[in-house]
Amino acid sequence: MNTNSAINLAQKLTLFNEHWSPKVVAKMNDYQLKLVKVQGEFTWHKHHDTDELFLVLKGALDIHFRDRVVSLSDGELYVVEKGEEHKPVATQECHILIIEPSGVVNTGDAGGDLTAQNDVWI
Amino acid sequence: MNTNSAINLAQKLTLFNEHWSPKVVAKMNDYQLKLVKVQGEFTWHKHHDTDELFLVLKGALDIHFRDRVVSLSDGELYVVEKGEEHKPVATQECHILIIEPSGVVNTGDAGGDLTAQNDVWI
Repeated sequence: MNTNSAINLAQKLTLFNEHWSPKVVAKMNDYQLKLVKVQGEFTWHKHHDTDELFLVLKGALDIHFRDRVVSLSDGELYVVEKGEEHKPVATQECHILIIEPSGVVNTGDAGGDLTAQNDVWI
Repeated sequence: MNTNSAINLAQKLTLFNEHWSPKVVAKMNDYQLKLVKVQGEFTWHKHHDTDELFLVLKGALDIHFRDRVVSLSDGELYVVEKGEEHKPVATQECHILIIEPSGVVNTGDAGGDLTAQNDVWI
């Protein structure tokens, strides 16, 4: 549930350390805002039904596509279109805000060990 | 239209100076991400059909409600729920990222002089 006060992203980022484990900090209509700390290579996957927004808060993230790599730094965002196969990669730890519909699973169609529990609020 | 490269929010903010005039920088499904520079008092208004997300990128924003004020600084966000009457106020110039469905008019049900042209991309 949303609270009645400002949500401070830096403060929320102090509340967890796991990688590839999205934490929900707010909802807007049927969308959720999720903080994620990432490092290393994620799984190639796609989301059949939805776009997915990545905003880098700290560090650098490369989003690999089959035909290109989009590199993001602090204060940069990118929208992965629905159906686009992608693989996020971060050499160093990187902090990200993701916005997508509630219920989206982090590994999309791929599943596997990096599949995180959904709807975990902090 | 979204581009095939990272969207740098600081760079986009150099492209305009007007206040209370949202500029679209990306779309995600049927939502748009809009940058806005604000200063002074906006109009009391509400959006009947949608929540509205405010993320402060620079400066400070007070969102007045009829029963409270929510104060936001850099890196803080708040979701105004649909139907909630609100009035954004910024003493100094403040830069904000707004996320809401495409087509939402900035003054909601209130109209008036501060109503901005919609769907202006930068």
